[in-house]
Amino acid sequence: MNPRVAAISASLIREVSSKKKSSSIDLGLGEPSLLPNREHFDAAMRYVAQHGVKYTPNAGDHALRAAIARHYAYPNMATAENVCVTVGSQEAMYVAIKTLLDPSRDELLIVEPAFPSYQKMAALEGITARGVVMREDADFGFDAERIAAAVGERTRAVVICSPCNPTARVLSLGEGKKLAHALERRGGEPVWLIHDEIYREQIFTGDVAELARIYPHTIVTNSLSKSNALTGLRLGWILAPHAFITQAIKVHAWLASCADTFAQRVALHVFETEGALQEHAPWYREHRATLIDALERTGLHYIAPEGTFYACIRLSDGLASHDAAHELIERYDVVAIPGIAFGEAMEGWLRLSWVSSPDRIATGLERISEFLHAPARASEKGKLLSGG
Amino acid sequence: MNPRVAAISASLIREVSSKKKSSSIDLGLGEPSLLPNREHFDAAMRYVAQHGVKYTPNAGDHALRAAIARHYAYPNMATAENVCVTVGSQEAMYVAIKTLLDPSRDELLIVEPAFPSYQKMAALEGITARGVVMREDADFGFDAERIAAAVGERTRAVVICSPCNPTARVLSLGEGKKLAHALERRGGEPVWLIHDEIYREQIFTGDVAELARIYPHTIVTNSLSKSNALTGLRLGWILAPHAFITQAIKVHAWLASCADTFAQRVALHVFETEGALQEHAPWYREHRATLIDALERTGLHYIAPEGTFYACIRLSDGLASHDAAHELIERYDVVAIPGIAFGEAMEGWLRLSWVSSPDRIATGLERISEFLHAPARASEKGKLLSGG
Repeated sequence: MNPRVAAISASLIREVSSKKKSSSIDLGLGEPSLLPNREHFDAAMRYVAQHGVKYTPNAGDHALRAAIARHYAYPNMATAENVCVTVGSQEAMYVAIKTLLDPSRDELLIVEPAFPSYQKMAALEGITARGVVMREDADFGFDAERIAAAVGERTRAVVICSPCNPTARVLSLGEGKKLAHALERRGGEPVWLIHDEIYREQIFTGDVAELARIYPHTIVTNSLSKSNALTGLRLGWILAPHAFITQAIKVHAWLASCADTFAQRVALHVFETEGALQEHAPWYREHRATLIDALERTGLHYIAPEGTFYACIRLSDGLASHDAAHELIERYDVVAIPGIAFGEAMEGWLRLSWVSSPDRIATGLERISEFLHAPARASEKGKLLSGG
Repeated sequence: MNPRVAAISASLIREVSSKKKSSSIDLGLGEPSLLPNREHFDAAMRYVAQHGVKYTPNAGDHALRAAIARHYAYPNMATAENVCVTVGSQEAMYVAIKTLLDPSRDELLIVEPAFPSYQKMAALEGITARGVVMREDADFGFDAERIAAAVGERTRAVVICSPCNPTARVLSLGEGKKLAHALERRGGEPVWLIHDEIYREQIFTGDVAELARIYPHTIVTNSLSKSNALTGLRLGWILAPHAFITQAIKVHAWLASCADTFAQRVALHVFETEGALQEHAPWYREHRATLIDALERTGLHYIAPEGTFYACIRLSDGLASHDAAHELIERYDVVAIPGIAFGEAMEGWLRLSWVSSPDRIATGLERISEFLHAPARASEKGKLLSGG
């Protein structure tokens, strides 16, 4: 067996989620609870009835590639040749990292807290990865100076997820520009920015950096998973300068051949329907308001989401997030993701998602508050473990 | 950039296919021209209307995994835990190779002629790959002794595509058993057989080795692409011993998360419908008969297909397959794949597919025959290149 595969540990997020009972209030979910718009599927079905589901070119259907490029209209990335359609943004990121970095010399810098997949992908490829952790006392806000200062001799790429899973923070235009300028001033071989934009349609602030608009060496990954409640469709893309896409297509081709033709037709209908990428956005804006009210009522320290459908809560001092998550499931029937799943930087925090109905979320937050405010909590733990 | 990616050349098959005109008779296609059965899609649509398209577990929907395992009922691989649902058999093979082989020490042995993807995948992973070529004077029939003799100290796995793309030969039960025994006698760390069974539902002989039934260290890859005209659906699977699947799931998870949930529902309907995997089989049996008649009329040396929907034709001595394929497109408006696309072993051959209508295939074969029987062919070439 490949020792790099054997060394990869199971997902802590999946482990915690697997303890969910049918009665549980699930604040762990990383996917929308909305149903997708049926019209996009009907359009794909009409196509399939007539044409079947043949292979598309490796990089994807040309009309879809063109529609994606046109929609974002990022500078120097506005044509079909700048797009590779992928198996969700997971494969988009995997292909981007594998294409860009030479395992024998390059290093990947990950802006943390971060979803664990970047680090796992690098490990799978034998690529050195290092994290640069945003300041906890600034609620993990993106800090361009801190990121730029962490770029080393061997750093070839920096991954930034903004809006951020798990912190729900958004990179501001000012910080984005500061980062771009710092990297430009650096000279030498360019350092690439890989911008994971998967939560792009769930943004609640007007001050947003789209790195592809302000830095030429940017690679964007995205998908329809979160915007249109299409997580299981596995339809994503890479947007990048043409020279990079040419190489990325080769990796994608030998790995997956092409993305699902049916899914590509669903996506084409989304991109050809005015406003369809934002069709679920009002739901999130509305629910965010009730979420903030419920968070306020808890009296706990939380980070108000600037984007995504997550919110992070600070645990009481000294309480390990993994223990907290387990107690919450066992005793309060609430699923929450322990911060440690996103690295040491998030120890002492919980990540909650707010895709359920507002009353379920409110009840979940009440139970978390009750748990964290319980004076005897720490001493109760021994009893719990001994079956009390 | 990753130098292993830069080193990978473009696909010769795609290059030749891209020269196709709207008038061309296409005997190059590697996918069925039939339309898929609409019922499988209707079933998936009913599911999506009710449940959306959420993520499935990384390894795939449990009911689908169980249905796949039950259908094949290979020894020690007959439960859901022996299946990882993948993005077509392309990702299945990629994950199998990446999981199994340690690039720092293991070697992959490829039974040739072979589809070029195995070699490209190994190159992408930095894994040493070596070919063992079946004898041309035996029309590339599988030869267990030859394969076993080629297994070296470092060989950890052998890839066999049977029925074979491109040769259309099938591994017989006798040769399969000979190979299994030879590997068992070898002792030491086991050598794995990776059996690419993608053309399993297009077999025209009763003498067939299913390696998973006769050798315990077998990994099977397959998909619905060829059996059910679902190439673009990207739905495949790995069937293997449980310990291997556990590791493979990790690679699959970080690479693609899970296969498309919609496609998994299509597949579940296929596996739950009695005989659905064979629903296109009569069409192939029938068309094979008319193909053989048409091949006989050409008077050329050909390999009668034992499986797949390909047939290989021997070119006149000294004629390079790449030149022949180009002349056929330019002057005869026929697309055929040059043997060299499958390695040196197939130089001097053409691979034809017979998925078009019988009269198109007959016309295509007549034109190829005309081309190969033309006495002035070689001397005409100069004129063609100078525009004559």
